Amino acid sequence: MIHVIKIGGNIIDDENKLDVFLNRFAQLPGGKILIHGGGKLATSLAKDLNIEQQIIDGRRITDAETLKITTMVYAGLVNKSIVAKLQAKSCNAIGLSGVDGNIIQSVKRNHPTIDYGWVGDVESINAGFLQNLIDNNIVPVISPITHDGKGNLLNTNADTIATEVAMALSEINEVHLRFCFEKLGVLLNPEDDSSWLRMLDKEQYESLKTQGIISKGMLPKLENAFRASESEISKVEICHADYANEQGEAFIGTQIV
Amino acid sequence: MIHVIKIGGNIIDDENKLDVFLNRFAQLPGGKILIHGGGKLATSLAKDLNIEQQIIDGRRITDAETLKITTMVYAGLVNKSIVAKLQAKSCNAIGLSGVDGNIIQSVKRNHPTIDYGWVGDVESINAGFLQNLIDNNIVPVISPITHDGKGNLLNTNADTIATEVAMALSEINEVHLRFCFEKLGVLLNPEDDSSWLRMLDKEQYESLKTQGIISKGMLPKLENAFRASESEISKVEICHADYANEQGEAFIGTQIV
Repeated sequence: MIHVIKIGGNIIDDENKLDVFLNRFAQLPGGKILIHGGGKLATSLAKDLNIEQQIIDGRRITDAETLKITTMVYAGLVNKSIVAKLQAKSCNAIGLSGVDGNIIQSVKRNHPTIDYGWVGDVESINAGFLQNLIDNNIVPVISPITHDGKGNLLNTNADTIATEVAMALSEINEVHLRFCFEKLGVLLNPEDDSSWLRMLDKEQYESLKTQGIISKGMLPKLENAFRASESEISKVEICHADYANEQGEAFIGTQIV
Repeated sequence: MIHVIKIGGNIIDDENKLDVFLNRFAQLPGGKILIHGGGKLATSLAKDLNIEQQIIDGRRITDAETLKITTMVYAGLVNKSIVAKLQAKSCNAIGLSGVDGNIIQSVKRNHPTIDYGWVGDVESINAGFLQNLIDNNIVPVISPITHDGKGNLLNTNADTIATEVAMALSEINEVHLRFCFEKLGVLLNPEDDSSWLRMLDKEQYESLKTQGIISKGMLPKLENAFRASESEISKVEICHADYANEQGEAFIGTQIV
């Protein structure tokens, strides 16, 4: 069984939260993969370098300079810092981007009205290579930078990468997928942390979406989660990073069904 | 047989030179590893961010902010750009820092008079992991960021990493080590590109050093090269990046004997 765990930017931005999460992740038994986003660091670096950032529907428009920044921050600083911390916790992690060992090939997004720039949509996953690392007790830590096979790097959504990696691995192994962030799960009221749902099915999701209760930032995450839940993946959950390694009764979060 | 090839910053800084080199490297048959430095990009990024840089005897003093920059540039942008280009040339490269899979553990330098900051001296190499990748036709591309096993990243000299990796692999395999840069080899006259030596032994090196003919920047490279030549490594050469994959008569460069 393989745990595919994605952590969001709000955990990466907070040194203490990240440390708590990494302790839990390191203790998780069995095969596992960590997929991380970038947090606010890329935005603040762009600001320091006077490179204007444009975000449409929660997606960063990636011009050539922004691609350099996201590659430096996601595949460099964030990825290597996480791996060094995991190594210190006796977890034999290896930091990878989608480029490395050709694990994630993507295609530059061709949108009819919006030029997203150097943004990639996942095309193929080298699941065999990831499985081989896991079989050798190595823990892949994946940053959301992919490539097009023609020498170009592409910025790619980390929730989508987690979903695609989990789906590809689920064809050769049992897979649990968890999206970990700073909330207890999918909230009925974003202002009330105790309003998390234990379960969410497609029908309720569509209804909450229509009512505007599930907010903009959650939509791409939940679209990915439902896509995953309809695949061979045996369990898809959305939870707080503190519950990343909890199983059974002790688990708190939203199961996507 | 494994080729361990190190490319210097002047090649990385020049897109055309880098492309010529990567074509040659991709064509090199058999097991191979590429180790790269960082070039001027880290220095120019530090300048753009108003972070003052201090270099003593060709070694960068690495304060906490500079460590972030070198990790972003070396392990992020430079490493992933090289790997994407190699993948496009059908070379199944994987970008690694010393942290990943614990391939290079180092110890923070403790110098009696100079505080080098977050600079690491190599302590151990996980040669078995590198050999395993090579056995699976995967080509490691290594950036000069290592770790201390306690969660800290360390900036490490790329010539030293090439030497240590080659020495560790030479205990389990035949290894050729090449330091590739923008000159034809070790020059008797730095102003005259045609003055390269076909061979250089320790005695002549000491004599040239005493006469001040071999200049400051070449000293750490040659110290590493002689250390390598005294080990189990079967061949140590210093050459132009354009000759990275030449063998026998076609090879132009300086052999360290």
